[in-house]
Amino acid sequence: MTAKNAFYAQSGGVTAVINASACGVIEACRKHPDKIANVYAGRNGIIGALTEDLIDTNQESSEDIAALKHTPSGAFGSCRYKLKSLEENQREYERLIEVFKAHNIGYFFYNGGGDSADTCYKVSQLSEKMGFPVQAIHVPKTVDNDLPITDNCPGFGSVAKYIAVSSLEASFDVRSMAKTSTKVFVLEVMGRHAGWIAAAGGLIEDYGIPVVILFPEVEFDQEKFLATVKEKVEKFGYVTVVVSEGTHWPDGRFLAEQGTRDSFGHAQLGGAAPVVANMIKDALGYKFHWAVADYLQRAARHLASKADVDQAYALGEAAVELALKGHNSIMPTVVRESSSPYKWSIGEAPLSEVANVEKMMPMEYITEDGFGITDACKEYLYPLIQGEAYPPYDDNGMPKYVTLKGVAVPRKLADFEI
Amino acid sequence: MTAKNAFYAQSGGVTAVINASACGVIEACRKHPDKIANVYAGRNGIIGALTEDLIDTNQESSEDIAALKHTPSGAFGSCRYKLKSLEENQREYERLIEVFKAHNIGYFFYNGGGDSADTCYKVSQLSEKMGFPVQAIHVPKTVDNDLPITDNCPGFGSVAKYIAVSSLEASFDVRSMAKTSTKVFVLEVMGRHAGWIAAAGGLIEDYGIPVVILFPEVEFDQEKFLATVKEKVEKFGYVTVVVSEGTHWPDGRFLAEQGTRDSFGHAQLGGAAPVVANMIKDALGYKFHWAVADYLQRAARHLASKADVDQAYALGEAAVELALKGHNSIMPTVVRESSSPYKWSIGEAPLSEVANVEKMMPMEYITEDGFGITDACKEYLYPLIQGEAYPPYDDNGMPKYVTLKGVAVPRKLADFEI
Repeated sequence: MTAKNAFYAQSGGVTAVINASACGVIEACRKHPDKIANVYAGRNGIIGALTEDLIDTNQESSEDIAALKHTPSGAFGSCRYKLKSLEENQREYERLIEVFKAHNIGYFFYNGGGDSADTCYKVSQLSEKMGFPVQAIHVPKTVDNDLPITDNCPGFGSVAKYIAVSSLEASFDVRSMAKTSTKVFVLEVMGRHAGWIAAAGGLIEDYGIPVVILFPEVEFDQEKFLATVKEKVEKFGYVTVVVSEGTHWPDGRFLAEQGTRDSFGHAQLGGAAPVVANMIKDALGYKFHWAVADYLQRAARHLASKADVDQAYALGEAAVELALKGHNSIMPTVVRESSSPYKWSIGEAPLSEVANVEKMMPMEYITEDGFGITDACKEYLYPLIQGEAYPPYDDNGMPKYVTLKGVAVPRKLADFEI
Repeated sequence: MTAKNAFYAQSGGVTAVINASACGVIEACRKHPDKIANVYAGRNGIIGALTEDLIDTNQESSEDIAALKHTPSGAFGSCRYKLKSLEENQREYERLIEVFKAHNIGYFFYNGGGDSADTCYKVSQLSEKMGFPVQAIHVPKTVDNDLPITDNCPGFGSVAKYIAVSSLEASFDVRSMAKTSTKVFVLEVMGRHAGWIAAAGGLIEDYGIPVVILFPEVEFDQEKFLATVKEKVEKFGYVTVVVSEGTHWPDGRFLAEQGTRDSFGHAQLGGAAPVVANMIKDALGYKFHWAVADYLQRAARHLASKADVDQAYALGEAAVELALKGHNSIMPTVVRESSSPYKWSIGEAPLSEVANVEKMMPMEYITEDGFGITDACKEYLYPLIQGEAYPPYDDNGMPKYVTLKGVAVPRKLADFEI
């Protein structure tokens, strides 16, 4: 077997640990120079493959590749670019294969969520048909935690830890101030369709904090919500509200789109947190503070979950090992062996069963009143936030995150318009 | 000398390290049982003293007191309650002395910002006049970093570290996404009057990130701001904007108060970040994300600066040592001996020179264009964010923050209306 090259790309929203998967892929490839000569990474994701803008990772030192394990974001650049169906856009798929052929690429490692699993699946099918078979392996990544079959998705555990810890810290703050000042703290978290991230905020109940969670899975009931907030403030003196950005009214409108306009009449893209906070203020008069975590939550490598970092790396590594064993059109998965103590192993799922399937949060993870999480949910979540995996810091007190050199592979093909 | 009791209270907005000062005070007192029999803490700050709601800290185990060093928020409760001038409100000052007398309190350790320094000063004066002299020592605390004489204020260094690290992480995220998606990230930080916290965001320039800072010290110039954002995006592909909540128009209106109204016509208390983000979108069309850190930043003990924790503890300890040496009406301070390597020692300042004096950010810390920080500012800031001081975590993956028992000292006096 002559050595081929591998292609690796990052897709969609980045996370605190997607680079740990990249590290797993590249370090595993480097252990097999007889089979994999080089890993070419797509600059800005799949767009790099389409435009033949490939990064030569052999030009990166082993120290810099190792540092990916503790560096958040997508070191090679990512993109939001979904390839359409084969029928609609055969041209782009054929271009991918053409680029792979030109650069002797035999392995395609695609690191992303549901959309990229679908692309990965199609590439594996089409390359076969086109007589240049490429082994396509999907490496799971998504803070949304919505890929099927795998117990959980790399990226989620670290966001969950960040939200749980930050909610706890801010709640301690509110508790300190509640006598004469702030009584309600509202934290907005990511999750347009699924409440996995918001659910992590519910863990602080175990630490004595009165908390109300607003899930996208539960239609927003203003009256019931306000009554619950009032009850908690009267009982505990304060309350923390964790609101998912996807929380919506019964008619489907997001809370964040409440028709807010600035002084010029422009529609304002506000957040759900200020809407909820002002609603509480208007109805109950409580003093409030609110925060919107946004990118801070998914980039917070400084507070990553060790379990998450370990799994992100292991899945990248496993992708390469499985490819070298001849597997194709699959995604390595996390299999939960036990929750307490937490034990997991790596499994695999056929991409035909992963592509275009969304795993929602089970309704039995949400309490009957719709504002909290059940013990089953807690049992699921805690293992995923276990352990700390701090990055190293420099003498200034800043984390040592790596920026790669990103040297381009010389192009061989004509331009391609995307 | 017969042993007296000490009174300790937390004042104003809490921080990630105010409990480290409490720990310093209590542990130092416990080393001198012959002189200080017990530390009574005000429940919810000075209100606890006025209403004779005192917490008996001798009922707290030494483990729990030690755990204060890594627990954010105010463990005894804080309050926003400013005693008026002696002329306006002699009744409350006299009540304080009456409570101190009833509980044999000879030492008053007040942990807060400018207002509490003023109260502390007045108590020391009045107690003398009233024939029950109390040694009043102010322990500095404020994320606003605006107390005079001391080089910096406990609480600030940890917020600065959190903002610098979080800005860096989110900027890496935006950089990954900028090709096809988000090009501008806007982070709103605390600081209504002074730009110290926003300045910390400027440190990421040293780490290769294009950043624009909006300070409360600089009148907002929309045209110049938008031109700067455009220039950076065109040059780097993306930009991070760190906006202080105190950023205001030339006429003094805060950006956050831009007349935003919800669909019912209610004025919305939005943030400065969404206003800035929407302004950029309207004028330049860039896709954006924004975050509001709010309480997350000042409660983030998980990312505290070690220098900050050490100083918070040392100032609490020094307050007791100075009191036992007979000092009165003073505040222990941080004296910077050198920036590189960072060396500091403890000094002291008379409260007469601390009370009612605000230290602003020097204009030579802001770059000429008004959107960045100078080398002198960086030299000032870096030492304050040096080192990490992680809290311990439990098996669930959550930090072990302590909640004290908070047993009340039996009351001896009649009720008092505040």
